[in-house]
Amino acid sequence: MKRTHHCGHLTTANIGETVTLNGWVQTRRDLGGVLFIDLRDRSGIMQTVFNPDFSGEALAVADKVRSEFVVAVSGKVVKRDPETFNPNLPTGEIEVQVTSIEVLNAAKTPPFFIEDGVEVDEQLRLKYRYLDLRRPEMQKTLMLRSKASKVFRDFLDDEGFVDVETPILTKSSPEGARDYLVPSRVHAGEFFALPQSPQIYKQLLMVSGLERYYQIARCFRDEDLRADRQPEFTQVDIETSFMDREDLLNMMEQLMVKLFKETIGVELATPFQRISYADAMGKYGSDKPDLRFGMELIEMNDIVASSGVKVFSSVIEKGGEVKCLNAKGCGTWTRKEIDDLGPYAARYGAKGLAWIQVKEGEFKGPIVKFFSEQEIEAVRERTGAEDGDLLLFSADNKKVVADVLGALRLKIGRQLGLINDNEYKFAWVLDFPLFSYDEEAKRYVAEHHPFTRPKDEDLELMDTDPLAVRAEAYDIVLNGYEVGGGSMRIFKREIQEKMFAALGMSPEVAHDKFGYLMDAFEYGTPPHGGIAFGLDRLVMLLAGRTNLRETIAFPKTASATDLLMDAPSQVDGGQLEQLHIKLAKKPGDEKK
Amino acid sequence: MKRTHHCGHLTTANIGETVTLNGWVQTRRDLGGVLFIDLRDRSGIMQTVFNPDFSGEALAVADKVRSEFVVAVSGKVVKRDPETFNPNLPTGEIEVQVTSIEVLNAAKTPPFFIEDGVEVDEQLRLKYRYLDLRRPEMQKTLMLRSKASKVFRDFLDDEGFVDVETPILTKSSPEGARDYLVPSRVHAGEFFALPQSPQIYKQLLMVSGLERYYQIARCFRDEDLRADRQPEFTQVDIETSFMDREDLLNMMEQLMVKLFKETIGVELATPFQRISYADAMGKYGSDKPDLRFGMELIEMNDIVASSGVKVFSSVIEKGGEVKCLNAKGCGTWTRKEIDDLGPYAARYGAKGLAWIQVKEGEFKGPIVKFFSEQEIEAVRERTGAEDGDLLLFSADNKKVVADVLGALRLKIGRQLGLINDNEYKFAWVLDFPLFSYDEEAKRYVAEHHPFTRPKDEDLELMDTDPLAVRAEAYDIVLNGYEVGGGSMRIFKREIQEKMFAALGMSPEVAHDKFGYLMDAFEYGTPPHGGIAFGLDRLVMLLAGRTNLRETIAFPKTASATDLLMDAPSQVDGGQLEQLHIKLAKKPGDEKK
Repeated sequence: MKRTHHCGHLTTANIGETVTLNGWVQTRRDLGGVLFIDLRDRSGIMQTVFNPDFSGEALAVADKVRSEFVVAVSGKVVKRDPETFNPNLPTGEIEVQVTSIEVLNAAKTPPFFIEDGVEVDEQLRLKYRYLDLRRPEMQKTLMLRSKASKVFRDFLDDEGFVDVETPILTKSSPEGARDYLVPSRVHAGEFFALPQSPQIYKQLLMVSGLERYYQIARCFRDEDLRADRQPEFTQVDIETSFMDREDLLNMMEQLMVKLFKETIGVELATPFQRISYADAMGKYGSDKPDLRFGMELIEMNDIVASSGVKVFSSVIEKGGEVKCLNAKGCGTWTRKEIDDLGPYAARYGAKGLAWIQVKEGEFKGPIVKFFSEQEIEAVRERTGAEDGDLLLFSADNKKVVADVLGALRLKIGRQLGLINDNEYKFAWVLDFPLFSYDEEAKRYVAEHHPFTRPKDEDLELMDTDPLAVRAEAYDIVLNGYEVGGGSMRIFKREIQEKMFAALGMSPEVAHDKFGYLMDAFEYGTPPHGGIAFGLDRLVMLLAGRTNLRETIAFPKTASATDLLMDAPSQVDGGQLEQLHIKLAKKPGDEKK
Repeated sequence: MKRTHHCGHLTTANIGETVTLNGWVQTRRDLGGVLFIDLRDRSGIMQTVFNPDFSGEALAVADKVRSEFVVAVSGKVVKRDPETFNPNLPTGEIEVQVTSIEVLNAAKTPPFFIEDGVEVDEQLRLKYRYLDLRRPEMQKTLMLRSKASKVFRDFLDDEGFVDVETPILTKSSPEGARDYLVPSRVHAGEFFALPQSPQIYKQLLMVSGLERYYQIARCFRDEDLRADRQPEFTQVDIETSFMDREDLLNMMEQLMVKLFKETIGVELATPFQRISYADAMGKYGSDKPDLRFGMELIEMNDIVASSGVKVFSSVIEKGGEVKCLNAKGCGTWTRKEIDDLGPYAARYGAKGLAWIQVKEGEFKGPIVKFFSEQEIEAVRERTGAEDGDLLLFSADNKKVVADVLGALRLKIGRQLGLINDNEYKFAWVLDFPLFSYDEEAKRYVAEHHPFTRPKDEDLELMDTDPLAVRAEAYDIVLNGYEVGGGSMRIFKREIQEKMFAALGMSPEVAHDKFGYLMDAFEYGTPPHGGIAFGLDRLVMLLAGRTNLRETIAFPKTASATDLLMDAPSQVDGGQLEQLHIKLAKKPGDEKK
């Protein structure tokens, strides 16, 4: 009984046709000897009817099937009685009068209902992922992901990018602490590493004159997991030669336009907003600002530096800063509501949270009495504070102020309904610093990675003021998420050497780790740059989900475990012996 | 100086235009103060001219460039003097009169010439892979591979297959001896394994009702390497529900038709030949027969069983067989030429090689005298032996006879020019045995893998005569290479249990290893099956190459080493400690 149609594809146009459907029993109802089976396949659901009038022996068979049985049925498509139309189903005006049925496989009762919107513990869902993936919502997400990959490929292929597979078994990198290692059977005591990204390979492909490369590449990072991280993740990896930054960003905007249009039918406007890192941090307290609403952070230093509010003036004296957020309409909040912001702000490093409410034109709140009349007027003017507003102040070093007010902006913005969930607001964040300073390691570290090209005009600052050097780097952000990032790369040996030196790497170490790359730069390396999009996160946003695991067919848990397969797992000692390794201690054999 | 055109895309239609090219200096010639630079990019080569008449300061810059410098040049496209046309270049009738040049990067002299057909040691090529990949032939192969992937995807997408990424960090399988293992930082003493194929995940996706899945998947096998194996390889992995074998094979034929047409312009005829495993072994001595020529193996048992040729009759008595190959036209070979086949045959297990030459109607050779007149006539009739033919006989057990004559058939067929290198002869090999018997392990092993469905009509033989059970398995072969294979899968728990039992697995072990899969089979698993194509090998054949490494951007050597990156490599002890493992012994610290 070969399938002639999919359940969800039948329409009133098929009325009168004899069809064969294959699928799963969604529900089975017995209405006085007439059986109704809702049959489900990946396209949708079709109601099938078994009636002594036309079903013959099929009726007895149908009587024995249960939910999730796999069956094939044949019969005639007919219009339902109008009073039994099901407006919740696209196929709700028709049904199939079954004349024969075959049970292809039986099914036990599944551990949870196979339908959307059912509340099921995620652990259970992951253990029975093969059932969880039967739910229409999950199938839709998998298909959306497949479609998104296809759109990426079609676009890049049209633009002359060559899909090249780079190795998964590769070399441990200097930031190797987060590398997954793979012992070698052939080379005792040696290890491959799984790539954190194909960065070096894609640069070498530019050296090789391929000019335009892409790959939808699996990457690996063995780090402490968070809700939005997976030990293996997928990036759409892109690199090009002979293109400047502007051309590349414009092309990538067109790629996003195509992606959103062809997957979810959304038309994006271009060009995307471009904002410097400094502005993003200054105005939104974040290098991945959600630009769907305003509520910008407001600089206060000049106004409050000499005010009587001690915590403000002393912070400014120490080189810190004071900023303010005007939470419009929150002037009516109770003291408790305001105080509740405190612990939230503390999570982001706030030691306290000063505030002012505007009520009937008057500033109210504990700090108001320390301001002069003039200062109050200046604050009112700067913040645009009006009746019913709540001003929130953070005073600390730059980073804490940004973190605290950035987080409060998002929290209150959402609370106030300022965020439109159906809006997609892309932006490019530009001019990142090339370095940051690692207080613990007492050295400069690369803000993106050590292959990022410094801006030409900042090159000489590399020796004198590294933290002031801006990078030819860019992130693409969407609704407060970083969905991609990249840079123009260093392509001359002397600059790469300078970079490694600035990172505190001796020439010997640099040569040992990256000699082949610096050698490569001497054989005619073209100017090049690229970008990588986080596919998991983009699909999550396209699908309107908030959890990366919903976008991955077989994800790991937050503790990096595969609950379905039960991996990782113990292995034979013999296997380890072949790999020339042994366990540091036996499992469970904890040293005291 | 932004590129306006690619070198290889300029034609006489561009004459008169001012263009900007970016690329690499292929050659630089000085003809009496006029400089000619052949500029190369991935599209081809364009001759550029620097002349005091029009080049101004560009001439002095051009004078300093050398091979593999990266430059941008602007100038006017003109027609060359007809006497300087270069018929070897598609762009040989035009040149660019350069008015400005910019050196984007300098280059040292590369370790080998960047052009096709240069004989370079492969070790050197792999160490400098980024230069090796600059050669037009290698670039063409990478682009062919990209195109092939795209064709696969387009076809499968059109047919409703969903591209799903399955995990790379997964569980060690029972055939785990060839698994690459990955120690877990989070779970001390436990390991992930890299997948030898996504087999189980794709079956679980069928359980989940996805119905049609594909993935261009990286797979890993840690085994002793041969010329045509890589530790990581790529397969186009396909699985479908609710399709029978015939429909799947027909669809895959259409996929191959599209692939060959769109990559190399070859029209394949369908349907592909279908041949049973038994026939393939019987007629060609191989389960991946090269069908571009005949020269089939001929059964001789009935004729020679009672002949005076002792080695024949005794082999037959012991249950072995005698077969013959008619090497048409080799009857004129010298004794030495014939004897030289001996060592070759010995590699495949032959203990000796009997032969008969037909000269002027007479059978000649050491064994002829042991035949009766009648037997000679029977041999002549059976083999179609004519004047000038050479009959080669192998007598041994079935496997050795197949291996020896199969190998001789290929060798002599090629020697005689019977093989057309421009012909693409696909075939399906069907009805493989489900099991073979492992003499060493003293047990049955799965000929394909333990998820392959036995033929319904052979099911009852599983208990009584396992070796007689045929599998619903199929290989697709092309010109003597296996380019893909698959099967219809077991989808009922009781048959899967029977299979594991037949393989000598206790119910406990089976549950431990595959419990989740057998559980899954109980929740409504549809009939399903699939196939996987070896992408590396297919691309090798499409590109007309004979070495898999030529089709992979960054391959490993035969000893599983990455010469470019120098991987695998030693790692910090601290890294190992974090992974809860230590080396079995220090590198170089061999126990005596």
